[in-house]
Amino acid sequence: MARTQKQRSGNIDNTGFGANSNAEGGRLVNPDGSINLKKTGFAIWKRISIYHSLLRMKRSHFFLAIMVFYTGVNIIFAAIYFAIGVEHLSGIDQSRSTFDEVMSAFFFSSQTLTTVGYGHVAPTGMLTNIVASTESLLGILAFAVVTGLIYGRFSRPKAYILFSDNMLIAPYKGGKALMLRVATYKNNHLTEVEAQITIALHLNEGGKMVTRFYPATLEIARVNSLALNWTMVHNITEDSPLYQYSLTELTDARMEVMVYIKAFDDHFSNTVQQRTSYTHQQLIYGARYIPMFERSPDGDYTVLELNKISAYEPAELPDTIAVSAAEEAGR
Amino acid sequence: MARTQKQRSGNIDNTGFGANSNAEGGRLVNPDGSINLKKTGFAIWKRISIYHSLLRMKRSHFFLAIMVFYTGVNIIFAAIYFAIGVEHLSGIDQSRSTFDEVMSAFFFSSQTLTTVGYGHVAPTGMLTNIVASTESLLGILAFAVVTGLIYGRFSRPKAYILFSDNMLIAPYKGGKALMLRVATYKNNHLTEVEAQITIALHLNEGGKMVTRFYPATLEIARVNSLALNWTMVHNITEDSPLYQYSLTELTDARMEVMVYIKAFDDHFSNTVQQRTSYTHQQLIYGARYIPMFERSPDGDYTVLELNKISAYEPAELPDTIAVSAAEEAGR
Amino acid sequence: MARTQKQRSGNIDNTGFGANSNAEGGRLVNPDGSINLKKTGFAIWKRISIYHSLLRMKRSHFFLAIMVFYTGVNIIFAAIYFAIGVEHLSGIDQSRSTFDEVMSAFFFSSQTLTTVGYGHVAPTGMLTNIVASTESLLGILAFAVVTGLIYGRFSRPKAYILFSDNMLIAPYKGGKALMLRVATYKNNHLTEVEAQITIALHLNEGGKMVTRFYPATLEIARVNSLALNWTMVHNITEDSPLYQYSLTELTDARMEVMVYIKAFDDHFSNTVQQRTSYTHQQLIYGARYIPMFERSPDGDYTVLELNKISAYEPAELPDTIAVSAAEEAGR
Amino acid sequence: MARTQKQRSGNIDNTGFGANSNAEGGRLVNPDGSINLKKTGFAIWKRISIYHSLLRMKRSHFFLAIMVFYTGVNIIFAAIYFAIGVEHLSGIDQSRSTFDEVMSAFFFSSQTLTTVGYGHVAPTGMLTNIVASTESLLGILAFAVVTGLIYGRFSRPKAYILFSDNMLIAPYKGGKALMLRVATYKNNHLTEVEAQITIALHLNEGGKMVTRFYPATLEIARVNSLALNWTMVHNITEDSPLYQYSLTELTDARMEVMVYIKAFDDHFSNTVQQRTSYTHQQLIYGARYIPMFERSPDGDYTVLELNKISAYEPAELPDTIAVSAAEEAGR
Repeated sequence: MARTQKQRSGNIDNTGFGANSNAEGGRLVNPDGSINLKKTGFAIWKRISIYHSLLRMKRSHFFLAIMVFYTGVNIIFAAIYFAIGVEHLSGIDQSRSTFDEVMSAFFFSSQTLTTVGYGHVAPTGMLTNIVASTESLLGILAFAVVTGLIYGRFSRPKAYILFSDNMLIAPYKGGKALMLRVATYKNNHLTEVEAQITIALHLNEGGKMVTRFYPATLEIARVNSLALNWTMVHNITEDSPLYQYSLTELTDARMEVMVYIKAFDDHFSNTVQQRTSYTHQQLIYGARYIPMFERSPDGDYTVLELNKISAYEPAELPDTIAVSAAEEAGR
Repeated sequence: MARTQKQRSGNIDNTGFGANSNAEGGRLVNPDGSINLKKTGFAIWKRISIYHSLLRMKRSHFFLAIMVFYTGVNIIFAAIYFAIGVEHLSGIDQSRSTFDEVMSAFFFSSQTLTTVGYGHVAPTGMLTNIVASTESLLGILAFAVVTGLIYGRFSRPKAYILFSDNMLIAPYKGGKALMLRVATYKNNHLTEVEAQITIALHLNEGGKMVTRFYPATLEIARVNSLALNWTMVHNITEDSPLYQYSLTELTDARMEVMVYIKAFDDHFSNTVQQRTSYTHQQLIYGARYIPMFERSPDGDYTVLELNKISAYEPAELPDTIAVSAAEEAGR
Repeated sequence: MARTQKQRSGNIDNTGFGANSNAEGGRLVNPDGSINLKKTGFAIWKRISIYHSLLRMKRSHFFLAIMVFYTGVNIIFAAIYFAIGVEHLSGIDQSRSTFDEVMSAFFFSSQTLTTVGYGHVAPTGMLTNIVASTESLLGILAFAVVTGLIYGRFSRPKAYILFSDNMLIAPYKGGKALMLRVATYKNNHLTEVEAQITIALHLNEGGKMVTRFYPATLEIARVNSLALNWTMVHNITEDSPLYQYSLTELTDARMEVMVYIKAFDDHFSNTVQQRTSYTHQQLIYGARYIPMFERSPDGDYTVLELNKISAYEPAELPDTIAVSAAEEAGR
Repeated sequence: MARTQKQRSGNIDNTGFGANSNAEGGRLVNPDGSINLKKTGFAIWKRISIYHSLLRMKRSHFFLAIMVFYTGVNIIFAAIYFAIGVEHLSGIDQSRSTFDEVMSAFFFSSQTLTTVGYGHVAPTGMLTNIVASTESLLGILAFAVVTGLIYGRFSRPKAYILFSDNMLIAPYKGGKALMLRVATYKNNHLTEVEAQITIALHLNEGGKMVTRFYPATLEIARVNSLALNWTMVHNITEDSPLYQYSLTELTDARMEVMVYIKAFDDHFSNTVQQRTSYTHQQLIYGARYIPMFERSPDGDYTVLELNKISAYEPAELPDTIAVSAAEEAGR
């Protein structure tokens, strides 16, 4: 069949994924843009960048981790001070209970770690002094690490791109097109925005399941500025990898649409990128996006309604669909 | 009319703005380069990057914000210490008034938050110690945040480009040209400087108001180094979107000229960019810029007079204008 | 001989290395990607960037360096305080031994340097106060330096690419090819990955030893994403610098294969690069790589086995080898 | 004359410098790569980036500036504490002299600013407490600034390129060539190194002094890696702006050679650039560079002798010079 022939010729092999469908499991790319992959064979501390894990974790988790670390270190040092003997912490009321003594050691530790050092409790004796001296250095180093982490979290370039939850097959220029919609949701500004869409299809070729990748040509693949929203349009012409595929066929081929956006961000003065991936479950057949921006009531500016990013209305697709369905039925 | 035909064919649709004039309000780009846009539909904390807002606010506002934050946190902790009981702050003279007690708690809080910890007032008792221990951690974290913010403010790449307040229609090569002037106003040095000018016109096409965008070709669109000043020249030839437009027509079309400059900055060793936008109100018809640099008195260096960036003198435009006006009158 | 002629014509002279084999010693590039070079003629502090040395040293060495610095500075200041007289450190029990006094001065110093400042020991007298005031400033500066270093260590863009220990001459498309294998071993993601392979051969040209460099064309020289592993394939065709070379000849020519990879890393939102170099000792003749990824047991994701990066199995090379060997034998 | 004609046609006008020789004074670019320019018309704080000035000043000046700032702030606060009354600093021995009291206030200030806060002297009373509370916040902010500055100084990408002190007219391929030599002098590694050389000549054209700029084509304008040294060679062929110029003519035209190098640095994982400029005084006519690298004694590595960067030996130039001189004499 000529169709398949054409698609074959257009596939690309430089996506970084392999062609052997049986070696790859599930979707290729997760919705957050990460590869659906687990690395093994190396110890976890070699495989994981702790710094970047701390950079990417949720803010609440990050501060919880700091609290846990702070409490943990204080418990350890409290135990050491207690083991050496609280009598070496001048100013502690030793007539009190053991629990009170431990707590005093704990609070002394926290005052040392944060370098508050009130001094109403102070170290005496060689050993306690050495431990306190070490703890205050540790505190300073830990603080340096935390400063670096917090700055790293702040300054990590992010694209802040909002993707529509769905992709549409919409009527377009008398035919149909695959459409996605994106916008930036923060007060940042992306310029020189480039998009790249790759469609993955799992096909049976001569009895063997292979994964084929096709670049999807966009009507506009680069905008000077992501000022408002951007509806990416892949016109399904004869050259399209989706040409004359029915919804059933796309589902059978476990179609996955990988989207990669690269831009220059003026917040960070840096290149930013964001990836996502859509599966056939997110495909809406026969729909069009509802406009998401309008003139402000006073006419002085434009309003972009972010909550409408995925809003669509049904739209009749042209006859070519019917033909395709007919073709399909006729096979 | 052939003219309109030509202009139509030259318009571009990858500016990031839409073509529907009725959906967009006011100017497209603000003088500071930001999009004249408001985003809605998302909660403000999702729409705003607090970090970048703090990075971009005026220096005086930034330090005011820190002062307010510092005072606010101390008030909160003073209230907590007071609620627990100031008798748990050893060293406080409790024979004094409640106001004095509250103030003492406030100052103890500030000594804890900044980790000064003189110790003449010190926490006693479980609860007060826990609060103080937490506050000193908070102080360290807040300090880390402030360090990050201050460094971020310092190191945020900025182009430091000074734009002329006006754009001129000046005589050029027997015809006329649209001119703007830029210079860097700091002791920075931009290399590989690229400029891109886009002209937006709001036109009535078949009864519908549409926004059309035209790239304006520059005589020199890229300079190796922004050493002195740079007068950007768009020659108004037959290929220009402004060809044979009268001032009245440009005003009716609410002409907006968007300027985008990108360069490599040796201060930051980073790519920097700056945008601005001119409206038809800033257009001076029939003028030329006065040179803004000259040899120093001792002849050893060049002097660039930044205050002359917008300085112009009247200049007679060639006949083509008259012709255009005649044409216009004849319509 | 036509073969040599062809290779000569393909060599390049913009590698940054010279062509005079007698002026260069040993391999050109070390396995870690650094140049096998020593710079002389400048004092070491001009030749070495201390900051970058501290950034690149092993983590354990870095923290050891901090410990040594901390102890050293405290010893120096303890000596100063002792020289001035410990009677100027209020709170020190002077009835004790000289050793105890020195240790007290040491601990006071550490409390000043870290700005803990308990205050049970405090400076009195002009001189001691001046020294303590200087030390606390020094402490703050040192801390600033350490914060910068730690952040610099964290945020230094690294590619985290794992290279196979070997390079193979493997059967490929009826002929043979030079193959290397790479993968990322951390949870980072490289996009727009470009590889450049340069082959250096030390040849006798007219009695003079010259070093010739040849770019090795790759079947795929750029992948969109380093998602799984990437086997780089240089097909040994007529245009290859390795065409019809026998293993002996390559060994005689002290073949060195320099690999340079450049990519965009989404951890750092920065360009990263990594280099390495293989010598003829790492060349395996007649082998192919064993696949290193497979579907996970539950079929939901893909598993990449990093420990298999260099795993190969013997593979018979096609006749062209035999021919080449025959040719070689026949000479 | 055909020669001048040719040169005219090759000049470029996108250097960022103007063509009017009478408006520009002295050399165009300083040896350190900065533009020989003074900006006026704006207040100094608008013209100067304090951050970048602090980043670029010599290390010794930087630390001196910190010392001066630290002492200055302490003097101001000491004055304030003294004005309020040292009786509000508990722990100060008030029986002592006024000088001692001022010094005590000074040291208390320094303990507050650095947040050491021993506490043997502590603030009492509303006013003193407010000042101390403000000072400790100021200390923290100042420290944040210093941390940012120190990190900024460390991490500022620099190319660390060493230029030869001279440029040579050397024999080359039977003719002659303009040569410069560069090398990196730190343990950094530049890749994808690009050089751009522009020659400025001040010429009398029709009685008016104009500055003309000519790009100088290099035999190799881009090296993959600045591994050893790089001798940049501009072959003086018919297409060269220097063709058939005598040394006298070049001196009369106040020849200036501007060199711009751009590369990717693996220390900083960033693009770095460095500029310099040579004047005709630095031109050596009839010389060649002495090789500056050699094999190490044990043959295991290469030695690059940085102190030989400018080392040259006299070399006879081919006849074309004589011809040119003859031509010149014949005019």
